[in-house]
Amino acid sequence: MTSLFPSVRFGGDYNPDQWPREVWDEDVVLMQRAGVTTATVGVFSWARLEPSPGAFDFEWLDDVFARLHAGGIRVMMATATASPPPWLAALHPESLPVTASGVRLTVGSRQQYSPSSSAYREYALRLVQKLAERYGDHPALEAWHVGNEYACHVPRSYDAESIAAFRAWLEARYGTIADLNAAWGTSFWSQGYGSFDEVHAPADAPSFKNPTQVLDFDRFSSDALLALFTAERDILRAATPSIPITTNFMGFFKDADYWKWAKQMDFITDDSYPDPSDPNSYVQLAASRDLMRSLGGGKPWLLMEQTTAAVNWRPRNAVKPVGVNRLQSLQAHARGADGILYFQWRQAKAGAEKFHSAMVPHGGADTRVFREVEALGAELATLTDTLGTDVPARVAILIDWDSWHALEQDAVPTKLSYIEQLLAWYRPLLDSGVTVDFAEAGTDLSAYSVVIVPVFVAATDAALVAIDDFVAGGGRAVVTFQSAVLDERLHVRLGGYLGQLQQTLGVSVEEFAPVAAGESDDLPALAISGGITSGATLWQEIVNPTTAEVVSTFSDGFAAGLPAITRNSRGEGAAWYVATLPDRGGIAELLGQVLAEAGVTGELESSAQGVEAVRRGGTLFVFNHSAVDAEVSIGGSPTVVPAHDLIIVG
Amino acid sequence: MTSLFPSVRFGGDYNPDQWPREVWDEDVVLMQRAGVTTATVGVFSWARLEPSPGAFDFEWLDDVFARLHAGGIRVMMATATASPPPWLAALHPESLPVTASGVRLTVGSRQQYSPSSSAYREYALRLVQKLAERYGDHPALEAWHVGNEYACHVPRSYDAESIAAFRAWLEARYGTIADLNAAWGTSFWSQGYGSFDEVHAPADAPSFKNPTQVLDFDRFSSDALLALFTAERDILRAATPSIPITTNFMGFFKDADYWKWAKQMDFITDDSYPDPSDPNSYVQLAASRDLMRSLGGGKPWLLMEQTTAAVNWRPRNAVKPVGVNRLQSLQAHARGADGILYFQWRQAKAGAEKFHSAMVPHGGADTRVFREVEALGAELATLTDTLGTDVPARVAILIDWDSWHALEQDAVPTKLSYIEQLLAWYRPLLDSGVTVDFAEAGTDLSAYSVVIVPVFVAATDAALVAIDDFVAGGGRAVVTFQSAVLDERLHVRLGGYLGQLQQTLGVSVEEFAPVAAGESDDLPALAISGGITSGATLWQEIVNPTTAEVVSTFSDGFAAGLPAITRNSRGEGAAWYVATLPDRGGIAELLGQVLAEAGVTGELESSAQGVEAVRRGGTLFVFNHSAVDAEVSIGGSPTVVPAHDLIIVG
Amino acid sequence: MTSLFPSVRFGGDYNPDQWPREVWDEDVVLMQRAGVTTATVGVFSWARLEPSPGAFDFEWLDDVFARLHAGGIRVMMATATASPPPWLAALHPESLPVTASGVRLTVGSRQQYSPSSSAYREYALRLVQKLAERYGDHPALEAWHVGNEYACHVPRSYDAESIAAFRAWLEARYGTIADLNAAWGTSFWSQGYGSFDEVHAPADAPSFKNPTQVLDFDRFSSDALLALFTAERDILRAATPSIPITTNFMGFFKDADYWKWAKQMDFITDDSYPDPSDPNSYVQLAASRDLMRSLGGGKPWLLMEQTTAAVNWRPRNAVKPVGVNRLQSLQAHARGADGILYFQWRQAKAGAEKFHSAMVPHGGADTRVFREVEALGAELATLTDTLGTDVPARVAILIDWDSWHALEQDAVPTKLSYIEQLLAWYRPLLDSGVTVDFAEAGTDLSAYSVVIVPVFVAATDAALVAIDDFVAGGGRAVVTFQSAVLDERLHVRLGGYLGQLQQTLGVSVEEFAPVAAGESDDLPALAISGGITSGATLWQEIVNPTTAEVVSTFSDGFAAGLPAITRNSRGEGAAWYVATLPDRGGIAELLGQVLAEAGVTGELESSAQGVEAVRRGGTLFVFNHSAVDAEVSIGGSPTVVPAHDLIIVG
Repeated sequence: MTSLFPSVRFGGDYNPDQWPREVWDEDVVLMQRAGVTTATVGVFSWARLEPSPGAFDFEWLDDVFARLHAGGIRVMMATATASPPPWLAALHPESLPVTASGVRLTVGSRQQYSPSSSAYREYALRLVQKLAERYGDHPALEAWHVGNEYACHVPRSYDAESIAAFRAWLEARYGTIADLNAAWGTSFWSQGYGSFDEVHAPADAPSFKNPTQVLDFDRFSSDALLALFTAERDILRAATPSIPITTNFMGFFKDADYWKWAKQMDFITDDSYPDPSDPNSYVQLAASRDLMRSLGGGKPWLLMEQTTAAVNWRPRNAVKPVGVNRLQSLQAHARGADGILYFQWRQAKAGAEKFHSAMVPHGGADTRVFREVEALGAELATLTDTLGTDVPARVAILIDWDSWHALEQDAVPTKLSYIEQLLAWYRPLLDSGVTVDFAEAGTDLSAYSVVIVPVFVAATDAALVAIDDFVAGGGRAVVTFQSAVLDERLHVRLGGYLGQLQQTLGVSVEEFAPVAAGESDDLPALAISGGITSGATLWQEIVNPTTAEVVSTFSDGFAAGLPAITRNSRGEGAAWYVATLPDRGGIAELLGQVLAEAGVTGELESSAQGVEAVRRGGTLFVFNHSAVDAEVSIGGSPTVVPAHDLIIVG
Repeated sequence: MTSLFPSVRFGGDYNPDQWPREVWDEDVVLMQRAGVTTATVGVFSWARLEPSPGAFDFEWLDDVFARLHAGGIRVMMATATASPPPWLAALHPESLPVTASGVRLTVGSRQQYSPSSSAYREYALRLVQKLAERYGDHPALEAWHVGNEYACHVPRSYDAESIAAFRAWLEARYGTIADLNAAWGTSFWSQGYGSFDEVHAPADAPSFKNPTQVLDFDRFSSDALLALFTAERDILRAATPSIPITTNFMGFFKDADYWKWAKQMDFITDDSYPDPSDPNSYVQLAASRDLMRSLGGGKPWLLMEQTTAAVNWRPRNAVKPVGVNRLQSLQAHARGADGILYFQWRQAKAGAEKFHSAMVPHGGADTRVFREVEALGAELATLTDTLGTDVPARVAILIDWDSWHALEQDAVPTKLSYIEQLLAWYRPLLDSGVTVDFAEAGTDLSAYSVVIVPVFVAATDAALVAIDDFVAGGGRAVVTFQSAVLDERLHVRLGGYLGQLQQTLGVSVEEFAPVAAGESDDLPALAISGGITSGATLWQEIVNPTTAEVVSTFSDGFAAGLPAITRNSRGEGAAWYVATLPDRGGIAELLGQVLAEAGVTGELESSAQGVEAVRRGGTLFVFNHSAVDAEVSIGGSPTVVPAHDLIIVG
Repeated sequence: MTSLFPSVRFGGDYNPDQWPREVWDEDVVLMQRAGVTTATVGVFSWARLEPSPGAFDFEWLDDVFARLHAGGIRVMMATATASPPPWLAALHPESLPVTASGVRLTVGSRQQYSPSSSAYREYALRLVQKLAERYGDHPALEAWHVGNEYACHVPRSYDAESIAAFRAWLEARYGTIADLNAAWGTSFWSQGYGSFDEVHAPADAPSFKNPTQVLDFDRFSSDALLALFTAERDILRAATPSIPITTNFMGFFKDADYWKWAKQMDFITDDSYPDPSDPNSYVQLAASRDLMRSLGGGKPWLLMEQTTAAVNWRPRNAVKPVGVNRLQSLQAHARGADGILYFQWRQAKAGAEKFHSAMVPHGGADTRVFREVEALGAELATLTDTLGTDVPARVAILIDWDSWHALEQDAVPTKLSYIEQLLAWYRPLLDSGVTVDFAEAGTDLSAYSVVIVPVFVAATDAALVAIDDFVAGGGRAVVTFQSAVLDERLHVRLGGYLGQLQQTLGVSVEEFAPVAAGESDDLPALAISGGITSGATLWQEIVNPTTAEVVSTFSDGFAAGLPAITRNSRGEGAAWYVATLPDRGGIAELLGQVLAEAGVTGELESSAQGVEAVRRGGTLFVFNHSAVDAEVSIGGSPTVVPAHDLIIVG
């Protein structure tokens, strides 16, 4: 595999339109000092590029292109459609988004458009056409950056155009209103629709809403935004077939189904803002890098946004300790990123993000922050061995956006966080240096030795067959409680749940018993014992084994004495069912047994807080995200990784 | 007294319209196996019965009636008006409810109608007429079930029709706008109205709203829904004079004044969903059963809805431990229920309540849950001795919906929960096996030996006279702080508060001193000492005795040294005033003295967590709601009641 | 300086329109018994004075004036415009305020008008004209009380008239849309406006709003209400040039810029409702009295509203312990108040404030409360020595409403409370009996020896020059972190922040490092050491000294080893910079050094919880706000101040 780019990209969002031109001179000089390869230009420039409807002003941007090109900086050109100018709302107030409570949001912030607004779409596409025409042939153009963080503020809108578009989407999906009624189970609570015109978006309602309607509106809303992306992409691709096109993801982001989005993009980019005051943020950070790589089918991706020091949108915004900016940048590279970019080049002087740190801080170039930027730029330029190489993984965790939505709906057995459940299984693998891919439901899993299937609650039949095929073909699968309880219409799989997985796992499930503690969320600890002895929490149930053997049983609670973990041999492989959430040690122990069966070993012989190891190409990266030095054993020899630092074993 | 039904009813909501007909065959077979006597049909079937306006489809329901009748199952026919079909909102968007913030709620959930919608009313009554005509003579018809859980989601609506109806209600109540102005005290804050047309519903406003306006809107809203009930009832009663009519209550439910509602119903039914993870839920459960019996004037009532295992609407939904479903069912019977029904017969496969347990779970008949259902059905059929018999009580607690609303309004001396205050007095009585009725303010209380009057804050003069008459006639009354502070217009009773109760109690009250702890709700503990020595909390005040003797005084706080509990002899009886909330032991000790004076003894010689005893007819039921065995002394002999079990002393 | 009034005013809001005339007879008798000098009449009487549009009824008010005058009671006449009658909303629904979410608030509460409503303004001014004509010459008239607690419930409205007025205000401020775009930094996030007509109020929006837009709307909203005040004032002043005019402030109140308001008023009045259950409430209370005196340029002011016992609007409303009503009244006098008035004379019988205590409680005159009122009235009448005298202060704390708004905006480095920061510096001064003025940014500070400048985040250049001039001229200034970070447009002061203060302080600031603790607000404690050794919290940063000497450095955290406190000699004076929040002891120690340099000594030789001392005229008042006796040393001799009491050293 080769990289999309000739070297590791380095740079950031560049907004010269917020500064006088005398600052532009210094910008290029400092970019060169810092080794910047790439500037992302124009993300929020629509109002400057088209100050009144149809009157375009490209002169300033021509100048920016020219200066960057003269300075040897490539341009990742944004389509500038992330925030329409205020005149759009003045001309087309119906283009503004509407909340589930019927509040029409106003201008003066950003992203103030309904995903289904025809006016927004029309004006946005005209702008994109103009940009493609004007800059498509510019030698500095490196890539197109469409929109920005789609759905981050307005994942859904409940305006009239959205409702009409939802009805059309439903008609396309279901064909007849009878099929919609069947899929949504509208015989419950007297919701039978006579026609698509009677259907509404799931806005504020007296009580719990129809779950399938809610999920369909989640799906529709992601699709509506994706259609905006592909409409822009199609214009750009037609104009510049050789220039790659992306939009920036936001890690584990619920409101856009990234499996669907990734298929429409030329390369994957991600925005990443971990909390420096959270000592465990590196775990989700590592996972999100693995997700980006997986979304791109293993190809290198770009870190499109991160920050050098502090953000400004948490209640209290800690600074990254010295070294952490470099550490997280190299972590991204080790997990497949061939570019490290920032929001933004120069810290803003005004506006809502003036306190968000940048590559050039308010204090200018003679600062700690800029010195670290320069050093990192120089270091990244040396990473030629790993550039474009693979990050091999034999273990995958299944991630499914429908299940994410379904698990976190109202009116379910218990309150669960989908991502917390995924990370509960990811963490022990990270701790032992086992690289993980994320896998899409329903795809061929045979490239992996082990697949973990946490809380896969809303599963298609085909996805269950794919898991069964994987196991039967010799794979090891671990499936947790609340998997395959529902199908993709959120209809219950009757008669023991699990569908096809009853064969895979050799069990059926009779009854759920979520752990509760009255009004409080302070859940009592339970235990399991047997092959795996561990604390457990959140969940119990009545599992009836058919062909499975019982690995562990519940020690207490409603299901005391009943199976908590089972193992089933199936074809060439085996499958475990886990009917609770063991503690971290219990999961680690179970995974240890599974990995051993599969012959998978990790890079770390013992785990330590903050320590992470991953191999890319022929290079092993060992990171220490903690604030104290860590001693690790690599290849049998003890090594110290300093605090907030890493070692690279070539 | 005889029961309305020939045996204890057993069954539940039956929604065959959610299933294919092959399932219907199994339904009747399983109902027979389980001893089901009664199926409640059609609660949410409007959209199925009238799929488009005026086009009725009864064929499927004819079939259901026929199958049930053939199987020996009686039908409690719902009027299906709980949720109108989506076409009603399409035809009449003004029929949708509007929140206090002006949000018009949408379809896709349930109960989406304004209580004052003329369109809803017109279509609902037409449907009821059709049902009465079609099924009124059916031999399987056992009762009518009107609507469903009135007010559970939409107790109030602020739409234009509601405002107009509120104005008419006010005009009927007050006659002239001058009288409204006087009642509402509109000279405060410049609220004087020139005409009824200037009056609005108490929607979102800049600050605290007029308290009497708020209370009148509470009353109006309950009345508006009750008018819907009586309109349906009148149609049914005219068509089928011999078929009894009910709607299902929801225990201690604030938003409908059940004293007014109960008078319009032929028999009382209740829905009951205690939290299995709350070890004290049996207390409020017992109280709610006593309330239902009291609402019906002592007549047997029906438990219309409960569940076998878990609900789905709490954040975390625990399962009832094995035995608890039976335990709570028999508790209901012991406290007057002659029917034990469930929501619902067969657990849903789709929709918002698919995770709500049922008589036939997702796993089918070969399950723990269904086996327990079968056993319970068999046991209930044997309860012929107690069927239709009385549950005698010599003690009553006064419950008053106006006071409930008034106590929990904004801008009051301190935050109090009306039901918590009632239960603080109910609990020690339950602990000692003293059966309690609930009494309506203003009624003749002479049937009781002891009446407890907690936080009766908004009292009519007549209600105070009734209490005084009760005491003067030989009764024992206990009245707590925050009683008779206001009249029914929420005007202060000046000159020492209490009104007529100043004579009854021999005290006046000079000044309130609520206990506070700054911003936190962690209130400091106080003490009282004297005839009753106890911890106390929430409240102190300056009590000035006239004819009363001081039983206990405050040990500390603002009112240190002043009376906390007084006793006044009045005519043939006596009355206690309690100016604080003693702890549970203190209340038990005080009630012990009061009961001893009145010659009332309980069924339990000592109290124990989870243990409850009640006598119905000639039978004593002793329940152990706790998870450990309990030793109790009954009639002097020690007896063990196993955990989650009961003993019946014939 | 002489007082505005011949003796200390005593009395309260008098609402006879809420009572029958027989009560009025008793009112005057009791007022005389209590020594009442002044009744504030008519605050909420609009609906009574003008029961329908244009139909005025003054007969009752004539009677009230006559009775009071006959009884020797002066009248502070309210303009009755605080709450328009319901008919205004019926005639002009557009006059009702609209929330940021678009909810139009309704009648039935109070203050239900948009600050920019032309209809409200027209009707209000007509009423004021009528009142001026009718009562301007009445011999009982003592002062005019305009409106009531402006902005307390509706500080901002987002209705169409408000948006139009905001646009006009912006046009007046900025002249051209280009200047607005520059000031608001609209090049960020594509917010460039083509005309003022495209600008909206900062209502609900998808994400963070433009900070300068938000601040301008804060300023506009205060100005809009102030324009209502001045419009009423102009009518009154024209009619009665010799009658002083006020409106009642609410202590530290964010939503009206009292520096601007105070300049438009003839005398300052304040409403004051400390929480009796908060043992530290006396601190903010003392500060608010100092603020009122400072707003009036040192002139005596009036306590317009307080209460005798308990309020009714907290969740739990504690009673003032015996003595505290007197204590807080004399505290106000000692800090410059020449009048002690209450809301209200007679406790209401109905309405939203019936549980708010008053001078005559529900229990009437034979009560603890009224006896204390009588005693206080008698005591106040004896305070002839201090009446009209000065409260000298050599120390000032700068308070700036723009910085208050800016500091507490969204999207800032960390969550801070502006008032908490001010009080952190006020408290040690209070503890040592140093009297403090509050100073306005940009004014001549040379009257003071020491000026403290906490979190003065949004500073004009002129204000920084004023501070620098003060220091250079011999003053001592203490400036904290987050000062002069921004200018008045909220643009960052680039290149080390601080602007002109870089010279004053001899430092620049390179980078902020707020203290965070992940999702929790439980911040870790840090330490500083050196000249001042102390705990510290909330904030660290990289401070680069130029001419300043380092007093203390950070012991730990991101900025370990870097300066935490610096001192810079500048001209004849010196300036300290404090880059964190030291603990109370640390601040006290630092201020001790600063005061010593300035030769300022306090009245208390040691601090004690609840103890406060202040000198007015030649009299020293020493207060003990705590519930236990305190021994203090005054002039070297130990003295006991009883709990909830004071001593006066003549």
